[in-house]
Amino acid sequence: MSGNSFGVLFKVTTWGESHGPATGAVVEGCPSGIDITESDIQKALDRRKPGMIASSSPRKEEDAVKILSGTFLGKTTGTPISLIMENKNVDSSAYEEIKDVFRPGHGDYTYFKKYGIRDYRGGGRASARETAARVAAGAIAGKIISREGIEVLAYAKALGGIVVIPGRISREDIAASSLMCPDPDATRAMEKKLEEARRSGDSLGGIVEIIVRGCPPGLGEPVFDKMDADLAKALMGIGSVKGVEIGAGFQVAEMTGSEANDPIAPTGFLTNHAGGILAGITTGQDIIIRVACKPIASITKVQKTIDIHGNPAEISIKGRHDVAVIPRIIPVCEAMVSIVLADHLLRQKAMV
Amino acid sequence: MSGNSFGVLFKVTTWGESHGPATGAVVEGCPSGIDITESDIQKALDRRKPGMIASSSPRKEEDAVKILSGTFLGKTTGTPISLIMENKNVDSSAYEEIKDVFRPGHGDYTYFKKYGIRDYRGGGRASARETAARVAAGAIAGKIISREGIEVLAYAKALGGIVVIPGRISREDIAASSLMCPDPDATRAMEKKLEEARRSGDSLGGIVEIIVRGCPPGLGEPVFDKMDADLAKALMGIGSVKGVEIGAGFQVAEMTGSEANDPIAPTGFLTNHAGGILAGITTGQDIIIRVACKPIASITKVQKTIDIHGNPAEISIKGRHDVAVIPRIIPVCEAMVSIVLADHLLRQKAMV
Amino acid sequence: MSGNSFGVLFKVTTWGESHGPATGAVVEGCPSGIDITESDIQKALDRRKPGMIASSSPRKEEDAVKILSGTFLGKTTGTPISLIMENKNVDSSAYEEIKDVFRPGHGDYTYFKKYGIRDYRGGGRASARETAARVAAGAIAGKIISREGIEVLAYAKALGGIVVIPGRISREDIAASSLMCPDPDATRAMEKKLEEARRSGDSLGGIVEIIVRGCPPGLGEPVFDKMDADLAKALMGIGSVKGVEIGAGFQVAEMTGSEANDPIAPTGFLTNHAGGILAGITTGQDIIIRVACKPIASITKVQKTIDIHGNPAEISIKGRHDVAVIPRIIPVCEAMVSIVLADHLLRQKAMV
Amino acid sequence: MSGNSFGVLFKVTTWGESHGPATGAVVEGCPSGIDITESDIQKALDRRKPGMIASSSPRKEEDAVKILSGTFLGKTTGTPISLIMENKNVDSSAYEEIKDVFRPGHGDYTYFKKYGIRDYRGGGRASARETAARVAAGAIAGKIISREGIEVLAYAKALGGIVVIPGRISREDIAASSLMCPDPDATRAMEKKLEEARRSGDSLGGIVEIIVRGCPPGLGEPVFDKMDADLAKALMGIGSVKGVEIGAGFQVAEMTGSEANDPIAPTGFLTNHAGGILAGITTGQDIIIRVACKPIASITKVQKTIDIHGNPAEISIKGRHDVAVIPRIIPVCEAMVSIVLADHLLRQKAMV
Repeated sequence: MSGNSFGVLFKVTTWGESHGPATGAVVEGCPSGIDITESDIQKALDRRKPGMIASSSPRKEEDAVKILSGTFLGKTTGTPISLIMENKNVDSSAYEEIKDVFRPGHGDYTYFKKYGIRDYRGGGRASARETAARVAAGAIAGKIISREGIEVLAYAKALGGIVVIPGRISREDIAASSLMCPDPDATRAMEKKLEEARRSGDSLGGIVEIIVRGCPPGLGEPVFDKMDADLAKALMGIGSVKGVEIGAGFQVAEMTGSEANDPIAPTGFLTNHAGGILAGITTGQDIIIRVACKPIASITKVQKTIDIHGNPAEISIKGRHDVAVIPRIIPVCEAMVSIVLADHLLRQKAMV
Repeated sequence: MSGNSFGVLFKVTTWGESHGPATGAVVEGCPSGIDITESDIQKALDRRKPGMIASSSPRKEEDAVKILSGTFLGKTTGTPISLIMENKNVDSSAYEEIKDVFRPGHGDYTYFKKYGIRDYRGGGRASARETAARVAAGAIAGKIISREGIEVLAYAKALGGIVVIPGRISREDIAASSLMCPDPDATRAMEKKLEEARRSGDSLGGIVEIIVRGCPPGLGEPVFDKMDADLAKALMGIGSVKGVEIGAGFQVAEMTGSEANDPIAPTGFLTNHAGGILAGITTGQDIIIRVACKPIASITKVQKTIDIHGNPAEISIKGRHDVAVIPRIIPVCEAMVSIVLADHLLRQKAMV
Repeated sequence: MSGNSFGVLFKVTTWGESHGPATGAVVEGCPSGIDITESDIQKALDRRKPGMIASSSPRKEEDAVKILSGTFLGKTTGTPISLIMENKNVDSSAYEEIKDVFRPGHGDYTYFKKYGIRDYRGGGRASARETAARVAAGAIAGKIISREGIEVLAYAKALGGIVVIPGRISREDIAASSLMCPDPDATRAMEKKLEEARRSGDSLGGIVEIIVRGCPPGLGEPVFDKMDADLAKALMGIGSVKGVEIGAGFQVAEMTGSEANDPIAPTGFLTNHAGGILAGITTGQDIIIRVACKPIASITKVQKTIDIHGNPAEISIKGRHDVAVIPRIIPVCEAMVSIVLADHLLRQKAMV
Repeated sequence: MSGNSFGVLFKVTTWGESHGPATGAVVEGCPSGIDITESDIQKALDRRKPGMIASSSPRKEEDAVKILSGTFLGKTTGTPISLIMENKNVDSSAYEEIKDVFRPGHGDYTYFKKYGIRDYRGGGRASARETAARVAAGAIAGKIISREGIEVLAYAKALGGIVVIPGRISREDIAASSLMCPDPDATRAMEKKLEEARRSGDSLGGIVEIIVRGCPPGLGEPVFDKMDADLAKALMGIGSVKGVEIGAGFQVAEMTGSEANDPIAPTGFLTNHAGGILAGITTGQDIIIRVACKPIASITKVQKTIDIHGNPAEISIKGRHDVAVIPRIIPVCEAMVSIVLADHLLRQKAMV
């Protein structure tokens, strides 16, 4: 398989290049009778829109989604839901001058090596533009899991070295921040860092934390399709993610068993170092995931590279680029986690 | 799907419980004409055997593998290769006294919630015993990738807080260490830590680093089946792994774009923060992966828990248990990475 | 999986309802560098257009296909190819009066039982309209197999009881017939039968024969994914197909082994009762397949039925309907066979 | 994929060659808590055993099945069920003299072309021996569907030109016949035909009809994974099957719409030409399927062939061979249909 589909029972296939006529997704396996409208999906898409904030790309992607199939009178029919978003405001001219040059940190070089063809218009299939289709599909997954009381929320845990002090995370606090960071002080410090990076023609990395609340125990399949394995694949498959950890994550390397094990009481688990997943199956506690995001690869600072003929070159990338993938990657993380949960919910229903 | 298979073209299905009559794997998609014998596979299995060292379980798993199909006169025929290992030396009596109690940090609770059935004999399907089948299948994957000059090696990067200082990693140095750690000083310090943990009835976590050398550029599928996404799934799907990172990993969160991007010269990439993968496709550089392993959940220290009726209980786990998953998890990591690479090699061949 | 995708490596996903805004297909796994344009695909689609002939529906489906992704400068890039056809000339008003009534021979009843929802606009997802997407995808498959010298052609073998006497079948003779029947006398007799059926408000069944020329030996996977098994699935999955046979087909039931076995000489097989497939794998001879097509279910003759509340009803179906699925089903059969062959070609490439 | 697995949620993978040490199946996706023992499976296997009757091979395959995983205390646990049958009484010596010669009507030639390797011991993977694993897996599927009141039965509809006159088919009448033919007169005539064929060193073809009773409406997925499409694949994937038809099957080619459509009354459908499936989804009526079986390819009559070097040869096949695949193929047909139904039952459960 060519890797453009995700999920077993709830399955999402995305298509489209950043500078082609449109991008979209086909969502299969959505049960019938679920209320879903274009505006439901649009709301999710608007959260990943480029904003007015320091970190965002000035490109106006309107991302107006249309549902082309799979619903009738506002309800799903059980047939595949085709979602399409036209690519407006597409201008490939900025790419003309770098069409023969591999941008460092991008997929230009590897796509060329894989396919023997150079589609130089923007990132092509590797562009963050592709994630709009995931967010649209994730909105449908969100409908399925919220019926079961499951809620997914994600936020900027760290950006440019500024780290949020843990505390109770609320959807409202996240929404109030230009960077989807629930801590106002941290938000201000992050904004300052972003502004500095932008001025120096550079970019910043960060960490997103995703929290799943209300997930019932028993989801996830043993051995290879463990819940954490599928979450890791879903999130590592987002461009710019270089690490995924669950619960205590990399900290477990320095813990002892008596520290890491979560004791159980009649009222439930007393701690949650496992991050809500044991042996690949949900415990019923919050699922806690963190992903490491690399800095945006497109920077105006001059970089060493080569052209498609192997000659040395220098490159300074102009055009409309974000300074960090945060906050726009955050709804993408939520979407991918929602898709994994919807898929495993359906898989579990089949088995009981 | 029930999650017991991995891979698209090179596909491994494992079966078996730790205290059942046998465990095994069916390997599909192996090209015909490859030399493979039981002793080739046995060699790989012997590397994950419990040893005489401080960290290892005294259970004697003989892991004598038999090939039941798919080869003729020492060569693969293209049909499925069925591998079986009898479970000798199986003694469930140690589990009798804890049969109604959920062990903290184990899958007992979640399996019970998922399936509504309690198979209390050892870890059942969640036992590390299942990984023997992966190692056996990984030996066949190893034959496929080594034909293309690809080499996978893994080692103990950290254990109980002792971290290996980076340097050139060699297979010989790894083999010389009781803990598969290429640094003799670190090995000694780790052994000491393990002995202390054992004495206090506790266990230790650690980090495994996997290095892939000789991988051609162009492997990995864009979007969902990125090479790093599939590696993350493969490794996070090993019991006790709580985090996976590629290249600079979580460090990218604090880097700038000009630091993180790997400049390209006519002779190749000048750095490797990407860990050999860009936009989900291999660059031709070394692939670098690290996984965080939690401490062994079975400890003799007394822990709070509940029984299957929800009553509070205390538990002290006796029996034959390792103190750390390192070093025995290391060949399992190598096997899973080899399986992912073999699968993507075949997928790429289909496309050109 | 929800059954809207077909193929393992060359994978087609279709979406769209007959009276929704559009229908389409996403084609994954097409190798890069293949010349493909909208007009290539349009040519294939035009062959299944309703014509001026006796058997054809007067609905003007323009089926103008657009390629939304996966190509650049006229060549495939290796990424998914999204194809879309707007549903023009859609008028659901003819369906208003039968919206609560199950049409005999249609999927109305079974869809309602499956999904609990009644999408009464035309056949919805079960409409022959869906097959336009298959034909479009099949045109891409056709490009892949014709590179290897494989040719697929299909024709009307029987219609309304008129059966074509076997002979050398040529693409030109098929194209010269309004019913895609290579025999001019049979064509005339079939046209007469169709006209009679139309006048009496009835419809006719028939048989399509598909011939594959130039197929190399060795395609098809043993056991479950045999070439004939995948062809049977592909063709039985076309609405109105009720039987599939390979080579001598149902005649083998009355043959002896010495009659049915195809003797082999140094120059090749001496007969072809096997229809080009032995043990599920192609022999290199012509592949011969026949499918039985039931009469169009929509007839103006009055039929007994029930409404969605279970009350008895009578129905006479008006609107734009063909009298037979032949000839329009013929390009659909060719498309599905091409898709199966393209998929197995790629699968075989991965294995050698 | 290599084609050794069948099913999406209820998935069966078979392995093993006819003259290797063992054959077996791994069954994934079986819900937990189902009673299943080795003797349940053995009963199903005993029905396909070579008997004392005219048509049967004198080879004593004992087919003693062992369950190696997936059950505990007589109930399924939800984990994969590994089934193994040792190949006793294996003697390859009869094949020594034909090791370099392709047997007409067998997979020898095509396997050699596909894999480039000649495993000359019996039919290898293409042997009917492989179907024992299907029957064993089918017994587990049977447990799942019988919980829902679904019953599958199959019988010899035709053999050597003797055809059974339709009537009410009962399991008892089938069991009473040495050929699994419910009509005693037809049985006797068939036995006579078989004896004649055996004497003349030849073999016979036939037709199996499979009837599914008690199937609820709503099973089957639209478009590609239609119930009839999956049944066609399942049955055409059995060696020696050359045709599959549903309900009226190939007869529909000569019917009109008013004849073929099944009228609906408040009490249900009035006829069943559709064979229990409309638009790929079950109607709730009996599912009726017929498959055409070619004569056994191994005959003692002398046949023309070539050897692996392309030289002309003659062959007369000795050894232990049946004269017809009927009756031994009948339990295999039942098994494959049961597997398809179990899979679609689980798929439907996931969607509601």
